Amino acid sequence: MSILVVGSVAFDSIRTPSGNVDRCLGGAATHFALAASFFTQVRVIGVVGEDFTSEHEAVFGARDIDIQGIERASGKSFHWTGEYRGNLNEAHTLKTDLNVFERFQPKIPDTYRDSEYLFLANIDPVLQREVRQQMPQVRMVCGDTMNYWITGHREKLERVLENLDALLINDGEAKLLANETNLVKAAERIMQMGPKTLIVKQGEYGATAFFSEHSFPSKVRNQFFHAPALPLAEVVDPTGAGDSFAGGFFGYLASQPELTPAVFKRAMFYGGVMGSFAVERFGTERIQHLTREEIDQRFARFRELSHLETE
Amino acid sequence: MSILVVGSVAFDSIRTPSGNVDRCLGGAATHFALAASFFTQVRVIGVVGEDFTSEHEAVFGARDIDIQGIERASGKSFHWTGEYRGNLNEAHTLKTDLNVFERFQPKIPDTYRDSEYLFLANIDPVLQREVRQQMPQVRMVCGDTMNYWITGHREKLERVLENLDALLINDGEAKLLANETNLVKAAERIMQMGPKTLIVKQGEYGATAFFSEHSFPSKVRNQFFHAPALPLAEVVDPTGAGDSFAGGFFGYLASQPELTPAVFKRAMFYGGVMGSFAVERFGTERIQHLTREEIDQRFARFRELSHLETE
Repeated sequence: MSILVVGSVAFDSIRTPSGNVDRCLGGAATHFALAASFFTQVRVIGVVGEDFTSEHEAVFGARDIDIQGIERASGKSFHWTGEYRGNLNEAHTLKTDLNVFERFQPKIPDTYRDSEYLFLANIDPVLQREVRQQMPQVRMVCGDTMNYWITGHREKLERVLENLDALLINDGEAKLLANETNLVKAAERIMQMGPKTLIVKQGEYGATAFFSEHSFPSKVRNQFFHAPALPLAEVVDPTGAGDSFAGGFFGYLASQPELTPAVFKRAMFYGGVMGSFAVERFGTERIQHLTREEIDQRFARFRELSHLETE
Repeated sequence: MSILVVGSVAFDSIRTPSGNVDRCLGGAATHFALAASFFTQVRVIGVVGEDFTSEHEAVFGARDIDIQGIERASGKSFHWTGEYRGNLNEAHTLKTDLNVFERFQPKIPDTYRDSEYLFLANIDPVLQREVRQQMPQVRMVCGDTMNYWITGHREKLERVLENLDALLINDGEAKLLANETNLVKAAERIMQMGPKTLIVKQGEYGATAFFSEHSFPSKVRNQFFHAPALPLAEVVDPTGAGDSFAGGFFGYLASQPELTPAVFKRAMFYGGVMGSFAVERFGTERIQHLTREEIDQRFARFRELSHLETE
C-alpha cells in the first residue's frame, strides 16, 4: 500500500570526522522515501529549486518513488550546512538556507489521494496539520518533529499530535516535549497528548516503542518494545539516520496486510536496519545502492543481536 | 559452583532526587554478592571496621553468603558519600573515607581455595593481581575497574587485564581505556590487552558483550550480543546497579555446567534483571528482599522486550 510523505527535499553540505561532502542530496523526505521504497510504493510532497536537476530526479526514479508532488519553484533548494564532531551524536548546524522551502505550501496531487499511509516528516506543524486534514481517510499517520517546533511552536504542534497514530522522535525531543527526564513517564505524557504509540529513536542505542491501549486493534500484553542498534565500527555520516529509520519502519508496516504487535516489532527492527545502512556513507549514497538481499541479511543479524534461544 | 569475590564492603550515604539515606550497607562486593547469591554459592573477601555489626552480617547470612573472608580491622569501614542529580546517570562523589580499606590486604581463607569462579571487583589493580595469582586454578575470572585506575594506574591495570576471561566495565570506561570513541573499535583494542570477552554496561540502555575467538571453547558466529534494559518509570538509587548486573551475570554463569554462547546470553539478561531491581530502592534494600520467582518473572519480561516471533 502507498505511503505519502511530506517533508524537506534538500541539499546538505556535511563535515564529519570521516570527511566532507558538498551539496549532496538530502532532506527528511528524501531519506525517508528512499528507505521506505524497499518495502512499498512511496509518494513525495515537497518543494525544490532550479538546482534540482534530472540527475537528482533519477535518484528517486531508480527506486520507483513518485515525485509528481515535488513542486519546482524558482530559486534555490533548501540547503543545510552542518558538522559532526567527537562522538557523532550531535549535529552542529553551521548554516540553514531555507530558500524555496521558506514559502512551501504543500499541494496534494489527485493521484496521491488514495494513499493509505501518511508520514509527516519534520516540518512546520501548521503544514503538517494542513496535509493531515486533507488526507482524513488514511489508515495510519505517523509524524516527526524537532526541538525548534517543540520549544517555539508548542500549541501548533499539539494540534498535530492530537491526530497522530504514532510519533517518532528522538530521546532528547521526547524528554523536552514532555518536560520530564524519565523516559517512561515522558512517554505516558506524550501519549496523553494524542499519539497512540510513541517511538523513541535512541541513535546508537536503538529505539524503544511505547504502546498504549489504543496502539493495536487487539489488546497488547507488552507495554514497550526495544529494537537494538547494530554496533558499528565506523559511522561515516549520521545525517538522515533517523529518517531512514522512519522509512524502514513505516515502509515495512505499510507493506503488511494487518497491524499486529508482531508486525510492529519487525517494523522496528527494519527501521534499525535502514538506519544502520544510512550512516555507512555520506548522504543517501548507501541506501541508493542497497539491495533487498542486504536488508534481509542485516535483519537476520539484528534479530540475533538480542535473541535468546528457548531453554 | 562457588564464586569468590574480592572488593569493597562499605557504607554509603546517598542523595538522589527520590530522597536520601545515611550509612546504608554498600560496596561493590556487597552488591555483587547479594545479586549472585540467587544463582550460586558466593564467598566474599573484604575488610570492614568496628561499625560493621551483626545486623550487617545478617544481610549476608540471610542469603547464605560466606563472609569468613571479610576481615575485621580496628577503625571504621569504608564510607562513600555521593549524590545523583538530574538524569541519574552520573554519581557525584562528595566524600570518600577509605578508613580500614586504605590498608586492605586481601587474604584468601583455605576454605575458599576450591572456588571455581573469581570476580575482581573495582579495587586497586595491584590487589586484583595478587588475588588472581593466588587462584590460578579458577575456571573463569572476571574483573571490573574504573576511571581512577585507568588514568592513574594504567600499567598495573594492564597486568590484570592480561589474565582476565572477561572485563565488565561501563561505556565511558571502555572508551577511556581504549582511548577510542567508537565502541566497536574500543572493544577490539581492549580485547587485544587480554580479556577474551568485554561486557560494556550501558546503564539505561542495557549492556553489550563483545566476543573474541577465545570467548568460548567452541567457535562463535556472533561478534556481539546486546541485552536490553527495562524502561523504568522510577529509578530511586542507581548505586550498585553495575555490581548487581555483574552479580546476576556471573552468578548465572557459575550455576551452569558449561559456558556456551546460549548460556552467556542468558547470563547477560540475568545481569540486566538484577541491575533493574537494584535501582528500585536505596542501597541493597530491593535485592535483599527479592525472591527467585520475581527474578524469573522479570527475566521473562526482559526476554519479550526485544523478542521477535519467528515469521
